[in-house]
Amino acid sequence: MSIFFYTLPPIRYPLESCFMFNLFHQDNHCAARAGILRTAHGDIQTPVFMPVGTQATVKTISNRELIESGADIILSNTYHLFLRPGPKLIAEAGGLHRFMNWSKPILTDSGGFQVFSLPDFRKVKKEGVEFKSHIDGMKYFLSPESVVQTQHALGSDILMPLDECLPHPSEEKEVERSIELTLDWAKRSREEWEKSGRKNEHGFETRLFGIVQGGMYPRLREKSAKDLVRLDFPGYSIGGLSVGEPNPIMYQILESVMPILPAEKPRYLMGVGMPLDLFEAVSQGVDMFDCVVPTRNGRNATVFTRQGKLLLRGASYTRDFRPIEEGCACYTCQNHTRAYLRHLFNTGEYLAGRLASLHNLTFFIQLLKSMREAIVNDRFTAFRNEFEKSYKE
Amino acid sequence: MSIFFYTLPPIRYPLESCFMFNLFHQDNHCAARAGILRTAHGDIQTPVFMPVGTQATVKTISNRELIESGADIILSNTYHLFLRPGPKLIAEAGGLHRFMNWSKPILTDSGGFQVFSLPDFRKVKKEGVEFKSHIDGMKYFLSPESVVQTQHALGSDILMPLDECLPHPSEEKEVERSIELTLDWAKRSREEWEKSGRKNEHGFETRLFGIVQGGMYPRLREKSAKDLVRLDFPGYSIGGLSVGEPNPIMYQILESVMPILPAEKPRYLMGVGMPLDLFEAVSQGVDMFDCVVPTRNGRNATVFTRQGKLLLRGASYTRDFRPIEEGCACYTCQNHTRAYLRHLFNTGEYLAGRLASLHNLTFFIQLLKSMREAIVNDRFTAFRNEFEKSYKE
Repeated sequence: MSIFFYTLPPIRYPLESCFMFNLFHQDNHCAARAGILRTAHGDIQTPVFMPVGTQATVKTISNRELIESGADIILSNTYHLFLRPGPKLIAEAGGLHRFMNWSKPILTDSGGFQVFSLPDFRKVKKEGVEFKSHIDGMKYFLSPESVVQTQHALGSDILMPLDECLPHPSEEKEVERSIELTLDWAKRSREEWEKSGRKNEHGFETRLFGIVQGGMYPRLREKSAKDLVRLDFPGYSIGGLSVGEPNPIMYQILESVMPILPAEKPRYLMGVGMPLDLFEAVSQGVDMFDCVVPTRNGRNATVFTRQGKLLLRGASYTRDFRPIEEGCACYTCQNHTRAYLRHLFNTGEYLAGRLASLHNLTFFIQLLKSMREAIVNDRFTAFRNEFEKSYKE
Repeated sequence: MSIFFYTLPPIRYPLESCFMFNLFHQDNHCAARAGILRTAHGDIQTPVFMPVGTQATVKTISNRELIESGADIILSNTYHLFLRPGPKLIAEAGGLHRFMNWSKPILTDSGGFQVFSLPDFRKVKKEGVEFKSHIDGMKYFLSPESVVQTQHALGSDILMPLDECLPHPSEEKEVERSIELTLDWAKRSREEWEKSGRKNEHGFETRLFGIVQGGMYPRLREKSAKDLVRLDFPGYSIGGLSVGEPNPIMYQILESVMPILPAEKPRYLMGVGMPLDLFEAVSQGVDMFDCVVPTRNGRNATVFTRQGKLLLRGASYTRDFRPIEEGCACYTCQNHTRAYLRHLFNTGEYLAGRLASLHNLTFFIQLLKSMREAIVNDRFTAFRNEFEKSYKE
């Protein structure tokens, strides 16, 4: 087989003998923090933006371009990979890293979010959740244990446990019931993870995060966080946000949860988000983010700059021979004009969404890297103020 | 403006003072020949395969990838660019090279082929052809003169004159009438080209080819070729082939036309073609080719190898962890397996068509480069026999 990793093959770090998360520096003026997260496939400097590679590919983008955009880790979706091509095939290929030829870290979600978003059919029991595939209607059953096993078959570095994701808004009573189930599933996930020796099928050490739920109720969010912290996870995710609630609510939930999470563990805000949300969350001490916005919006001709979004289909770009953003180092900005991109979108060319996605990924990834640099120099708040002054939503 | 050419900016060769086409070597055993075609944007080693960039982009592929695949020249379609974004805008951008940031040579067709393929509306007169845009139904008029002007506004290096493209099959009488009109248009195109000082709007020297027509009638093909040769064009195209006729007919037409075309001028077989056709045409002394097959078939999951085509959606590739073709130097083969590509096609991922197109372009471009090497070593026929032995259509 003549297939090679695009970058060097992973080193099997003796993880147990070194730090998993090194809290490198906390900004003097706020809770924003810079860290280093170690995995079997390399170190990740936090805060970090993780591109989403749902089906073992970040839509339209090659791995070489991902590396060039600065990506240090990607997220992939267990639900989609579970259905196609299936964990068995990916395991046979040597794991997701080899299957898609990505040698840097991979975080996988549990599939729960997707299953609980299915409009059709789903049955939640104490044991787990039954659902019908959105592709062919086949019935499947996910348990906390099977979800850890699936992610271990995929060979991911950072695992999420199965959690119940309620629709927004949900009644307080319903949320209260739900976080108990999610806590029970978290316990069982953690046991399954320990049983595996904290290693995936391919011999690499893994980390399982706990997921804080609790809807829009600070009291329940606090309870969920405290219960999970007692279980002592290697990291904590905050799920069930950015589901349609107003931003101030999201910020308030973060405020209630963040102080409970242990400082020495990484914190991951799932599915967030837009630039201003990223600044707020980082200021509160969040370390990790993922969002489909760079690629989804890119495919729809929306690109991000420090001045705000541009809708490239607009007639005003017809004769605009500037790059999307002056000074941007991405391939798109180094090589192409807004006028050219507008033409590509206008004529329905594949290259359009690809070039726009590449710019957006670079924008988000580099934005988080700039935040980190600001934190290290104790000027995160100043950097945030500058950004918010020029950025028009 | 921070936009740069991906490769070095073009040199303004004093073309008149040096060769335009250097017939470098002819194979000892057949009419296959190796040449160097000089343009204002660089030299092209022939025989050459030209990727098709219809709307100022080779579908799904970046310029960097084009360069890496070995492309030395691309073809772009005047009809499409005429309608969107229009020659005026492209001229404002500094020409097509700058608009799409491609610094190597560009050949443009006349738009005739597309206009004569429109199902809807078209009116042919002695003066030119009126047609309705396939996009918005607007009426336009193309004359031989306007078509040269449009290509000069686009800034192309090698121009095609407006010709009448009849449907296949057509009556001999109708074809006879048509080649007279095409000849008259060729004369007028040549005069317009001379009037421009053989330069495009951007100051670069250009070359106008004559297009041999004549349907499937060797007698009319010969007449068309002789008439055009009398007009003394810098190169000759053979149009109206690969339109549904059986391969032996195409080969026979080539046999009747090729001896008439002057050896010291480049010969371009328009819209051809498949690997075995390329071998036959090169053996008869054709120098240039273009075809959408590598990208169109690539997007449809068909890839080319020395052993023949692979239909990557096939279940047999589910667990095939080999690259498309062992030894292929393209990004796709260096990084990804058939199993991964099958998964991408199966899940409708954008990256699928992109990776397959990139491999196919590399395959066709490198195939022509291999033919050239064989010619230089007087072993074209041996190389062709080897290829035909292993290649299953």
